[in-house]
Amino acid sequence: MKALLEKDNKKPGVVLDFKNVPFVDKLENRLMDALSDSEGPIREMCAHIFKAGGKRIRPLIVLYSGMVFSELSQNLMDAAVAAELIHMASLVHDDIVDNSLLRRNRPSINKIWGNEYAVLCGDYLFARAFGILSEKKLMKSMSFMVEAITNMCHGEIRQASDRFNSNVNVESYYVRIAKKTAIFLQSCAKSGACIGGAGEKDIDIMGEYGLNVGYAFQIIDDILDFCGEVDVMGKEKYGDLKQGNITLPVILLMNKDEYRNWLLEIINSRRLNDNDIDKICNALKESGVLDESSEIAAGHIKKARKCLDMLPKSNYTDFLYSLADMLQSRIN
Amino acid sequence: MKALLEKDNKKPGVVLDFKNVPFVDKLENRLMDALSDSEGPIREMCAHIFKAGGKRIRPLIVLYSGMVFSELSQNLMDAAVAAELIHMASLVHDDIVDNSLLRRNRPSINKIWGNEYAVLCGDYLFARAFGILSEKKLMKSMSFMVEAITNMCHGEIRQASDRFNSNVNVESYYVRIAKKTAIFLQSCAKSGACIGGAGEKDIDIMGEYGLNVGYAFQIIDDILDFCGEVDVMGKEKYGDLKQGNITLPVILLMNKDEYRNWLLEIINSRRLNDNDIDKICNALKESGVLDESSEIAAGHIKKARKCLDMLPKSNYTDFLYSLADMLQSRIN
Repeated sequence: MKALLEKDNKKPGVVLDFKNVPFVDKLENRLMDALSDSEGPIREMCAHIFKAGGKRIRPLIVLYSGMVFSELSQNLMDAAVAAELIHMASLVHDDIVDNSLLRRNRPSINKIWGNEYAVLCGDYLFARAFGILSEKKLMKSMSFMVEAITNMCHGEIRQASDRFNSNVNVESYYVRIAKKTAIFLQSCAKSGACIGGAGEKDIDIMGEYGLNVGYAFQIIDDILDFCGEVDVMGKEKYGDLKQGNITLPVILLMNKDEYRNWLLEIINSRRLNDNDIDKICNALKESGVLDESSEIAAGHIKKARKCLDMLPKSNYTDFLYSLADMLQSRIN
Repeated sequence: MKALLEKDNKKPGVVLDFKNVPFVDKLENRLMDALSDSEGPIREMCAHIFKAGGKRIRPLIVLYSGMVFSELSQNLMDAAVAAELIHMASLVHDDIVDNSLLRRNRPSINKIWGNEYAVLCGDYLFARAFGILSEKKLMKSMSFMVEAITNMCHGEIRQASDRFNSNVNVESYYVRIAKKTAIFLQSCAKSGACIGGAGEKDIDIMGEYGLNVGYAFQIIDDILDFCGEVDVMGKEKYGDLKQGNITLPVILLMNKDEYRNWLLEIINSRRLNDNDIDKICNALKESGVLDESSEIAAGHIKKARKCLDMLPKSNYTDFLYSLADMLQSRIN
């Protein structure tokens, strides 16, 4: 397994290309099947989403979290597919919420088909996911997914209502990213471990792994919004700032006396021009808050690895370690 | 039971006020509970939706379809609540799709909170419904609800893509309203019968009842768009026509030689002014197609009643008969 993971990567133990990890082909096929029994424009939208690809982090976490405890099973594969469908649904709806026109380097569903179709496409994907889970009677997975979705809704609403809100702080940021991102990854890890037959304690530890991977993932995503390459991110740069979404680096900058008042004034104006954005980006770099944010993300990756240390050793644990390392490598 | 149903109605056997049917208070309480464990704006939106009320036709069909075969159970009540939550979710999302500003005589969620929040509110309601069904392990109900939602998505998309499409005919209209409306009512009836312990055959008959009630319901709704009172409908008049949604009365009018070319020209122009709408409404009345449409709806009500005739007699069958009659009375 380790050899497989390292096959196409120079850095040992770090997976940079998920196309080469075990069972990803099987996952893609199953996902395509699940998306192909629709008709008309919904079928076209599903094909567009499928072709846009993605890292499939959530379904792979489901699969490998389960395979730490047991062989690959059909149930595990189905729960993985359901998780990706829910993720896809939430992305389609998020792009409406954020009015995003680009997703994974392609025009978003709302950009091509309009908000009306995008709403229905997302609903269809949610229903498809629950259809798979109910058909296979995966009740626990369903509960985890329901928890993930209700939290995502609250998280997205919180993000929307906190736009240009200069009162957000590190604590409220954490609540938001837990709801928006991390609880979903926790749910995926728990769903997998549960189907794999793990005991309650191990399910919780695996969940803690997912939660920390989720925190790291979101924090890194928020950092990349300021310094990532559009080609790599597959979405517009400075999108958060333009939308008034105050993320960790900006919160840390607000906490610094020398920037606070200046930054508050810009944010409270609720209208950031290109000049403001340039200035904020420079301040984020020179003040060191991007590095501070990276260190915070690294702390979560470390916590995630510690969770894995407490679980049974398995070939598939290696992937979960690698996933954590891969996140770190995005900002190195 | 019959006495209860008739308590506040002059016309025997016809329920005009669902507030007086058995167990509706229990249903309302349970629904309120299900909606109240949210927070922030989602909680406010849920409260707005709950307060707007509604006839609760879907959950009542779940309840009574089950109670034809057994006593009221917690499972039945939960499945009923889940059905109403799904209905609420679909209304919230439909109002985005149709850009409707009025729902049940109150401003729609998208009107007050905007499309962004409305998308998330609908997602939350869907997730809440599946949360209840998964918590109670109501797998069959879940499958029926998934079928209902996937069909509703396809039906709404079909409606949107058929806007101002003068090629729609009675057959394609039926496919659309089955997907959009009738299959959901069929799913509710089957969900209830299934939880009530009915055999396969009776579940299908009850489903057929629901399907026909659904057809009648949608056809009558489409008729009322031309001749209903805004206060009674709780939404804008001529909404379908304005949006280019070609419904049964208009299709029947297109089938009449003396109106066909004139009507095609107006529809194909894709821009209907108030004068066009007035003219079409007059033509619908004078040509007799509104009456023809009512007769078609009445045919479905008759079919629905025939299904009930084949099922075991129960006090609760009476409600299901009354529900069918009540639909008819809306256009009498």
